[in-house]
Amino acid sequence: MPTSTRNEPVWKSRLRKIVQSNWFTWIILAVIMFNAAVVGIETYPGVYENNQGLFLTIDRVLLWIFTVEIAMRFAAEKSWKDFFSSGWNWFDFLIVAAGHIFAGAHFVTVLRILRVLRVFRAVSVIPSLRRLVDALLLTIPSLGNILLLMGIIFYIFGVIGTMLFQETAPEYFGTLELSLLTLFQVVTLESWASQVMRPIMEELWWSWMYFVAFVLVGTFVVFNLFIGVIVNNVEKADDSESPEEETQRELRELRSEIRELKDFLYAEKEKK
Amino acid sequence: MPTSTRNEPVWKSRLRKIVQSNWFTWIILAVIMFNAAVVGIETYPGVYENNQGLFLTIDRVLLWIFTVEIAMRFAAEKSWKDFFSSGWNWFDFLIVAAGHIFAGAHFVTVLRILRVLRVFRAVSVIPSLRRLVDALLLTIPSLGNILLLMGIIFYIFGVIGTMLFQETAPEYFGTLELSLLTLFQVVTLESWASQVMRPIMEELWWSWMYFVAFVLVGTFVVFNLFIGVIVNNVEKADDSESPEEETQRELRELRSEIRELKDFLYAEKEKK
Amino acid sequence: MPTSTRNEPVWKSRLRKIVQSNWFTWIILAVIMFNAAVVGIETYPGVYENNQGLFLTIDRVLLWIFTVEIAMRFAAEKSWKDFFSSGWNWFDFLIVAAGHIFAGAHFVTVLRILRVLRVFRAVSVIPSLRRLVDALLLTIPSLGNILLLMGIIFYIFGVIGTMLFQETAPEYFGTLELSLLTLFQVVTLESWASQVMRPIMEELWWSWMYFVAFVLVGTFVVFNLFIGVIVNNVEKADDSESPEEETQRELRELRSEIRELKDFLYAEKEKK
Amino acid sequence: MPTSTRNEPVWKSRLRKIVQSNWFTWIILAVIMFNAAVVGIETYPGVYENNQGLFLTIDRVLLWIFTVEIAMRFAAEKSWKDFFSSGWNWFDFLIVAAGHIFAGAHFVTVLRILRVLRVFRAVSVIPSLRRLVDALLLTIPSLGNILLLMGIIFYIFGVIGTMLFQETAPEYFGTLELSLLTLFQVVTLESWASQVMRPIMEELWWSWMYFVAFVLVGTFVVFNLFIGVIVNNVEKADDSESPEEETQRELRELRSEIRELKDFLYAEKEKK
Repeated sequence: MPTSTRNEPVWKSRLRKIVQSNWFTWIILAVIMFNAAVVGIETYPGVYENNQGLFLTIDRVLLWIFTVEIAMRFAAEKSWKDFFSSGWNWFDFLIVAAGHIFAGAHFVTVLRILRVLRVFRAVSVIPSLRRLVDALLLTIPSLGNILLLMGIIFYIFGVIGTMLFQETAPEYFGTLELSLLTLFQVVTLESWASQVMRPIMEELWWSWMYFVAFVLVGTFVVFNLFIGVIVNNVEKADDSESPEEETQRELRELRSEIRELKDFLYAEKEKK
Repeated sequence: MPTSTRNEPVWKSRLRKIVQSNWFTWIILAVIMFNAAVVGIETYPGVYENNQGLFLTIDRVLLWIFTVEIAMRFAAEKSWKDFFSSGWNWFDFLIVAAGHIFAGAHFVTVLRILRVLRVFRAVSVIPSLRRLVDALLLTIPSLGNILLLMGIIFYIFGVIGTMLFQETAPEYFGTLELSLLTLFQVVTLESWASQVMRPIMEELWWSWMYFVAFVLVGTFVVFNLFIGVIVNNVEKADDSESPEEETQRELRELRSEIRELKDFLYAEKEKK
Repeated sequence: MPTSTRNEPVWKSRLRKIVQSNWFTWIILAVIMFNAAVVGIETYPGVYENNQGLFLTIDRVLLWIFTVEIAMRFAAEKSWKDFFSSGWNWFDFLIVAAGHIFAGAHFVTVLRILRVLRVFRAVSVIPSLRRLVDALLLTIPSLGNILLLMGIIFYIFGVIGTMLFQETAPEYFGTLELSLLTLFQVVTLESWASQVMRPIMEELWWSWMYFVAFVLVGTFVVFNLFIGVIVNNVEKADDSESPEEETQRELRELRSEIRELKDFLYAEKEKK
Repeated sequence: MPTSTRNEPVWKSRLRKIVQSNWFTWIILAVIMFNAAVVGIETYPGVYENNQGLFLTIDRVLLWIFTVEIAMRFAAEKSWKDFFSSGWNWFDFLIVAAGHIFAGAHFVTVLRILRVLRVFRAVSVIPSLRRLVDALLLTIPSLGNILLLMGIIFYIFGVIGTMLFQETAPEYFGTLELSLLTLFQVVTLESWASQVMRPIMEELWWSWMYFVAFVLVGTFVVFNLFIGVIVNNVEKADDSESPEEETQRELRELRSEIRELKDFLYAEKEKK
């Protein structure tokens, strides 16, 4: 927890108190929810087109509120390194900076999507949600190997699928990219037989081997990926408890007491 | 367990015995099953229309039986606070009260649905089912954060989807509500590619990015939601056992005995 | 394990040895596999029609082999009660008895299905498979409550669905039976939106509430049913190990030794 | 780990050092990735046809690089038995040998698929991926029984399905092979109702019994197969830790110390 050090100016510690206060968080959260409501209302046909000026003004104001907020949080840190050591601060900074950069541009859609993504700032503002997302993201690196294996399997099946079915089913296997997308659809088991395999089988009867092989291998690997996450989580849950470690610590203490007892008795004997 | 206290009238304790007896539960269960059979028979075409009078009479009788039952259970409690402290009593009370309130009304469908919902009273009457549903409902609050995160993700993707595909696929992304329904369909992986993504891709080739991103993020979060429930359940199952705690208790007792032994030996030495 | 008792005739114990021998099991397994091959070959168009006499003869021979086998296993038991105490023996007996009963009948399809079901005898003959199926079936009673709850939910949604959509979608909700079948399809998430909900929504826009509610409730309960099975299995796996109990047993022995030591020392003191 | 023994020629130990070095692995990995890129580029229409000579040359060169690599790894082993004791070496050997064998042949598709399969050599080269795939493959034998049961269930339902629906739905149940493929589709829950069951139900209303029975039995067995894998994995995860065994080892040591103490005290008493 940052504390006011001697060399620090007084305004910095005061600013920190404000920034870390509950009411500050609640105000920002309210602004984010207002932002969310605005982008929601904008989607209704006619509403955005007829009030473009109003929505532009609201967006300007919201963007500046967020800019001031982030500037305050930045200034409250001891150094800029502390601020940028957190991925969440990077997210907040980039989403607001992008708003300023694209402000003058004519890429209206990009600007509107940026405005919607600001709703995700709710996660960076609510600590319990931030911890949850951090925990979810932390499970990904431990899955590195299985994701790599998944990638290799997708690539091999993608190339073979393109080679074999390019002409029979150009809408599913026309190019390597399309094949990879189709394989992603197949691994979610969505219409893999009725829409993808059966029409191809009418021309190439042996194509079922390709699809059955991929469904078996793909779902098996995806399933093991899921198991990895489960075992990971169960272990983590176990770690936080670890009653066995406590047992072992107690056992070690018990043993040292018995040793003491023995030393005492041997010493007694020596004396005699 | 409620016991007859001194200030309580005798009829109250007698009523409580009746209400808590097995045969009372069985009678009510039989009435509920009769109610279930009646609402089932009503669905066959012509049956309800041709015997509206009969079904109305049966319904009146059933409603009054339930009313008397709940009145008895209410009277058997020490105070009305005790009765309404249980969510199941609220459910029973509201389902019967609503039957009386809408009785005169002409909203035939509402009345009939109420009659069907009374079948769910079987759960409130069978204790083992009541405990099961209580247990299922108790897992929900612990999932609060992940449900909130899910909501934010749905909202962001919903607004972006409406913005991008409103004109290309009005039946799926015409309004924000429709988009959210479509996203719910996508997260269950139902026809997400064959019916939703592929027709849109014919006009907007880049739309696969939106859908693949949502399928990955959505299923990952839903899956973690499920893991949350599993870990929750496994932990609960562990709690009921906790052999480690027993081990530690035994270890503590062992240590105190060894200490006693030591104190005795040191005392012996002192004496000498 | 059955052992030859004094009052038992010699042929019985000899028969038992034969029946329990490995080569007997292997011969029966070979006959079952031959039976499986025959019923498989029969499915090819023309094969059955052109060789009905041959297949009938083969079937007669196979049926009598099985009859003799079961008669031998029956005779090898001490009493007929021992034989019928096993569900597998009942299965074997019924499948062969039905073969004889329907032999003269003209229900050709029933007879052929019986012949196919005999393939399942492979499970009753291979001990490891029999244990596996026994274990799978044993998980069902522990799920009694959740299956009952599932049934109540299906019934309530079935009746309401029939009431609401009977006229809009007669092919899905025409009768209560059809509704229950449709709900089973919805709970497997198969085409629940594209084929069932969306066509109904075109007439009754509010019907999404019914389907989303059922998908949420249904999958939640099915998922908890699955968790029940998992927790059940994990606990069983834990029971077979139970290293904690071993730890506690060792701890108890340790303590008794320390007590002995103490008694000895106190006794020494007394002597002095 | 192989170490240079006295009788071994010097070049063998030097070769081993090269083969086991990191840079050797990285070079081979780079060649594999180049191979992967080439087979990917080949899939684009026209690219392969217009540069067949170039791709043939590249393929020749890649094939010889892999041949030399495997020859080096073979020569670095103490004996050819050591080399072929690893399944991965067999895979590497066969994939390269097949490349030479089919080189002159005109089965262009077979040759191209072989070239794509070489990408899977990335797994055999990266140790962490090799271990992961080894672990995945090791879970299969423990599932032997449940896979056998699955096979029996598929066969029985396949034969019955062919018998019953051969004429009603020849595209799904025309032959036994087609029925088994359809059952595989049904067990993945893909369009099982909308495409397979409902069209058949229009002619044979009772066919829902067959499909509902198979969905229930099939998904129940598949689900238990998955549970087997999970329990397997969780147990393995537990084995690697096993704090209980450590506890028990410590307890045994503690007890032997207490015994020593007792022996000492009894000996003291004897002396007196």
